[in-house]
Amino acid sequence: MAVYTEVSDDDLACFIARYDLGTLLSFKGIAEGVENTNYLLHTTGGTFILTIYEKRVDVADLPFFLGLMEHLAARGVNCPLPVRDTKGNVLNELAGRHAALITFLKGVWPRRPKVEHCLELGKALARMHLAGEDFPLQRPNALGLSGWRPLFEKFAARTDEISAGLHELISSELRYLEQSWPNDLPQGVIHADLFPDNVFFIDDKLSGIIDFYFACNDALAYDIAVCLNAWCFDASSMFVPAKGSALLRGYESVRPLSARERGAMPTLARGAAMRFLLTRSFDWLNTPKDALVARKDPDDYIRRLAFHQSVGSIADYAPQLIS
Amino acid sequence: MAVYTEVSDDDLACFIARYDLGTLLSFKGIAEGVENTNYLLHTTGGTFILTIYEKRVDVADLPFFLGLMEHLAARGVNCPLPVRDTKGNVLNELAGRHAALITFLKGVWPRRPKVEHCLELGKALARMHLAGEDFPLQRPNALGLSGWRPLFEKFAARTDEISAGLHELISSELRYLEQSWPNDLPQGVIHADLFPDNVFFIDDKLSGIIDFYFACNDALAYDIAVCLNAWCFDASSMFVPAKGSALLRGYESVRPLSARERGAMPTLARGAAMRFLLTRSFDWLNTPKDALVARKDPDDYIRRLAFHQSVGSIADYAPQLIS
Repeated sequence: MAVYTEVSDDDLACFIARYDLGTLLSFKGIAEGVENTNYLLHTTGGTFILTIYEKRVDVADLPFFLGLMEHLAARGVNCPLPVRDTKGNVLNELAGRHAALITFLKGVWPRRPKVEHCLELGKALARMHLAGEDFPLQRPNALGLSGWRPLFEKFAARTDEISAGLHELISSELRYLEQSWPNDLPQGVIHADLFPDNVFFIDDKLSGIIDFYFACNDALAYDIAVCLNAWCFDASSMFVPAKGSALLRGYESVRPLSARERGAMPTLARGAAMRFLLTRSFDWLNTPKDALVARKDPDDYIRRLAFHQSVGSIADYAPQLIS
Repeated sequence: MAVYTEVSDDDLACFIARYDLGTLLSFKGIAEGVENTNYLLHTTGGTFILTIYEKRVDVADLPFFLGLMEHLAARGVNCPLPVRDTKGNVLNELAGRHAALITFLKGVWPRRPKVEHCLELGKALARMHLAGEDFPLQRPNALGLSGWRPLFEKFAARTDEISAGLHELISSELRYLEQSWPNDLPQGVIHADLFPDNVFFIDDKLSGIIDFYFACNDALAYDIAVCLNAWCFDASSMFVPAKGSALLRGYESVRPLSARERGAMPTLARGAAMRFLLTRSFDWLNTPKDALVARKDPDDYIRRLAFHQSVGSIADYAPQLIS
């Protein structure tokens, strides 16, 4: 974990006293997550996640994230629900930072997703998109098309330290994406970071979705493109057609894609690969080599991008999909 | 956390199948602890801690540690109990390492211990010493008197990088300890690392003791000396007499000290300060400055040592103790 806020006894007691939770029984820091500090908190009233928002999160965005969770949960999506204190607030202060208490969601994230997980994921993603339709708040995608070039420029001069030729690869791909990006696709609230560690399963049944701290308004189909990258490649970055087929079949069983969305999928997938290639490259160059936090290798996304560049149509992602 | 072992779905499923635990409901890495990897594991059968033993732990010591927890728990000490698998084993393999499942203990460790915590701690420590009397296994204290000089020699040449004069301070103190160490005190099983993060409380009542991975055979009173260092100084390393009094009063209410133990307390406290000064100094010099793991400042123990050197008798630790 990159940042970790410690909490004193008095601060914790003050914070908990704002809520109607009973006696504190356990309070343990969780090793997962890199953007915020998370504690698992047991009281006689239940089990909760206490999230302390670190500096990388813009406080102005918190009402969007927390409001979205409430909105989705009210519409039957299994996601954490922010707990209101006795005054009705979902945001409070703890250890000099903003903090929220959210309900604990049972389940285990799949370390090695299987085809059945991808099918369940597709259905849940489509249901989330439908449930988000009438969410009133707006948040632009800071890591969408318009954010990629400024991010690249922050490390462009050092790009080839990661691998030879990467500067030219990103430059030409950015030009392609800026010229080809489809701006006329159905928009809505997307999760934008739906990696396996944000999706819980119990006995291979999807039990919930967590971590809405990249959620924003963008093309719904772009969320599928993120999942194609995050779920449908194997450990050596080879695309697994059975997983792509399951993801798209699951999604379309709930929300069928339009012809424009289908036609745009290869470009969206290239964009999603670019988004993670850029953030991983930036982090790679800005994390000390001997730091004890795992650096995620940008190379995984160079290989994903090469695959997407070779794709002719959505049929290449879902060869087992009858359409 | 210095080391962190990831666990695959298949490995975890295999491991859990050895036990009679029901369905897996949650599996989260815990940010606490630096020696081993710990996961909090919920199943329909209960809540457990899964510990994966990293390379710093000698596998040959595990039967001592796990056997001690079973021994103490059977005698009414609130400590984690190793869970036996269906074949009766407490040790299994997971992700290429040794691993054990232990029961989850409710409670929260005090970030800022109060006088009442020290009183409870003293009682619990004495009860643990009595409960350990008939534990049959033996483990010498690798970080006891005979281990200090070899540890010092590993970093002696670089000592003054930490603070000017530290080499001479440690050298002369080691000579004093080697000449003055009391070898005739009552021996037994000691915890040897009973810092606040290893003692849980619910509503200011002590609910349990954890982390027996430094436990060993040594002078019982040395365990009190460790606690004097770990619990009875404030954030600026000033001794708090009310806490020392409470610790000793609590301890003696269960197991009164002999005259020899009382007489030896200042020397034992100097030894305990030396033990943590040495390990912190070693870690300080061997942890990269920009690593994202907290380096504990050796300076805290230089100041504790100076206090102990100024102490005349046990009465200076417990001025409020009627004796």
